Amino acid sequence: MINESNLLRIPGPSPVPPSIQRAMSQPMIGHRGAETSAMMKRIKPELKKVFGTKQDVMIITGSGTSGLETAAVNVAATGDEVLVLVSGSFGDRFAKICEEYKMKTHRIEVEWGDEIKVEDVANFLKENKNIKAVFMTQCETSTGIMNPIEELSKAVRENSDALVVVDGVSCVGGVVTEMDAWGVDVFVTGSQKAMMLPAGLAFVAVSDKAWKVIEANEQARFYLDLRRYRDNLDKDTTPFTPGLSLIFGLEQALNLMNEEGLENVYARHTLMKDMTRAAMKALNVPLLTEDDVASATVTAVKPDTFEAEALRKSVKTKFGLSLAGGQAHLKGEIFRIGHMGFCTPADVLQYIGIIELGMSDIGAEVELGAGVKAAQEVYVKQNN
Amino acid sequence: MINESNLLRIPGPSPVPPSIQRAMSQPMIGHRGAETSAMMKRIKPELKKVFGTKQDVMIITGSGTSGLETAAVNVAATGDEVLVLVSGSFGDRFAKICEEYKMKTHRIEVEWGDEIKVEDVANFLKENKNIKAVFMTQCETSTGIMNPIEELSKAVRENSDALVVVDGVSCVGGVVTEMDAWGVDVFVTGSQKAMMLPAGLAFVAVSDKAWKVIEANEQARFYLDLRRYRDNLDKDTTPFTPGLSLIFGLEQALNLMNEEGLENVYARHTLMKDMTRAAMKALNVPLLTEDDVASATVTAVKPDTFEAEALRKSVKTKFGLSLAGGQAHLKGEIFRIGHMGFCTPADVLQYIGIIELGMSDIGAEVELGAGVKAAQEVYVKQNN
Repeated sequence: MINESNLLRIPGPSPVPPSIQRAMSQPMIGHRGAETSAMMKRIKPELKKVFGTKQDVMIITGSGTSGLETAAVNVAATGDEVLVLVSGSFGDRFAKICEEYKMKTHRIEVEWGDEIKVEDVANFLKENKNIKAVFMTQCETSTGIMNPIEELSKAVRENSDALVVVDGVSCVGGVVTEMDAWGVDVFVTGSQKAMMLPAGLAFVAVSDKAWKVIEANEQARFYLDLRRYRDNLDKDTTPFTPGLSLIFGLEQALNLMNEEGLENVYARHTLMKDMTRAAMKALNVPLLTEDDVASATVTAVKPDTFEAEALRKSVKTKFGLSLAGGQAHLKGEIFRIGHMGFCTPADVLQYIGIIELGMSDIGAEVELGAGVKAAQEVYVKQNN
Repeated sequence: MINESNLLRIPGPSPVPPSIQRAMSQPMIGHRGAETSAMMKRIKPELKKVFGTKQDVMIITGSGTSGLETAAVNVAATGDEVLVLVSGSFGDRFAKICEEYKMKTHRIEVEWGDEIKVEDVANFLKENKNIKAVFMTQCETSTGIMNPIEELSKAVRENSDALVVVDGVSCVGGVVTEMDAWGVDVFVTGSQKAMMLPAGLAFVAVSDKAWKVIEANEQARFYLDLRRYRDNLDKDTTPFTPGLSLIFGLEQALNLMNEEGLENVYARHTLMKDMTRAAMKALNVPLLTEDDVASATVTAVKPDTFEAEALRKSVKTKFGLSLAGGQAHLKGEIFRIGHMGFCTPADVLQYIGIIELGMSDIGAEVELGAGVKAAQEVYVKQNN
């Protein structure tokens, strides 16, 4: 029965709700036919809401990284000066993409688990006037930090003409996202996190200011050329055969988010974060990040009285609960819990309960039920 | 009921068999976990058979075009001389990708509906000694021509050191493919044609000779860098979060192909092609291509007594049968039938019967049943 029990609580891919599974199982249709165009037309306004933008959101068939590379090769070119804000492995990936294209890549790095400081960015831009784009990560999946995008974007705009490019892969759909109000120029996300789909689609929205740069940018690109996606999306289609089964699922994902109401979706994620953090504190297990900069979609835990990997193995073997490990130098130091998309407060109670049993199983000191109780108390307080 | 009847007979996306749909509906799992690695390990040897190669086949999450661009940016770089053999719109796409990257792009073009002549390629290469790669299309989806890859590859190797790069998107999995025996260096296909999956995966296999070029190639690329895919595939994983639901389906697609036997899969496709062509001849409706160069996966028909678009509209409206139209200058001139992947001789009888009724519906002269009978006779002859 454990083999049938698949409790996927890693920070993506996240579980796919049954109604989305059913939507993805619709018989295949022609990608140039009227049915596909009608579906694209229905999806367009709904996807804008998730990004908080009046801009159309383009859909690329590819992993999240294809979305990051799309952003890079469309807004900048070989030789351009760019700034990348690196708070973990996905900020590092943005920088590596820029470096691969031989952009003059500056980095502002912080210790993993910390957030980017707005002042550092402002100061850097005051002294470096040729930066064409600033790349930043909203939720850094590797640490569970939520960078202050609104403030960072403001600092960029006040101190430069650079474009603001945001990787929102592991949080858009789960947290308030106001692309236009925040002055973000390129916002990227993927399908397999808070959007509740399997991996395979990347979403990219672009500001009017960024379009001017993209139009004029001579960096070579074909599959990832946003101009092709925009021109086709204007006609409710795509430049290349899209992953239609995922787009069937996307429409249902947007339905689910609308039924719940986006505000309630976001409140649910915040609640799950608060429940998870309260539980870990009650269990005396340290968190990697501070409360005020913690992501609502992923929580990194840094145990000091037991081995993170031993716990992960125990809960996977005994209960089918998948938690993520640490990346790079945090490997073995932390475990990460994904609470995004198809995840509810009840699921939080379950994984906290399992983590308590796992701690007991590996011989860690644990007061059974203390974490669950703390999470329940957060829930009750929130709902009174 | 017509709205429920979805007879998808375009040359991709093709229908997805029920057992593949079920496989794709498996609950999501972690892409870095043991289950995914075990699945990748099981898939690897099976995928090699489909390509006729001892090389591992890399899986890219993207449309077919992402596979074509992967081939181009990995084997050649800006400024390199390349030759593209253009027999239709997908050959033209290969050329456009090379041109986007400012490769010195030579074209050998033939009239749409004709195949590339081996002698022309040999002669060109004798006089142009700096060609680094020759790009060719196996089945040209826009015309239904099957180019003679084995002979073309031989001509390239006998007359140059250029790499042989083949777009097999609309036929690999449906026709005999012997990458190693034919001396092909890079073979690309997609998921949504003879592989019976939705769009969203591209497959790329690479020869030892090509790996040397790819290793040394300084063309910038990140998401499409084959070295990353190879290094990760060696460890039964992928560099970026893969489209796992499609990979669940891929394993079942390979199961289905193995159960039937690859030889029988290929024979079925040839039979469906022969039945379709015999039917059109019996109905006195001209074919775009000659018998000896016709693809086993797609047949282009060029009616001279009725409008192709009127027929397409009639069969779609009355029976839910989707046929494809022509592309570029063949728009309105031809219609195209996809008979690939999840398609049987019984399906051929059905679409021929519907096409006869459609011809009658739009007032074309037609002997009802004559096409079906001719197709049946081909079937009987083949099975006696």
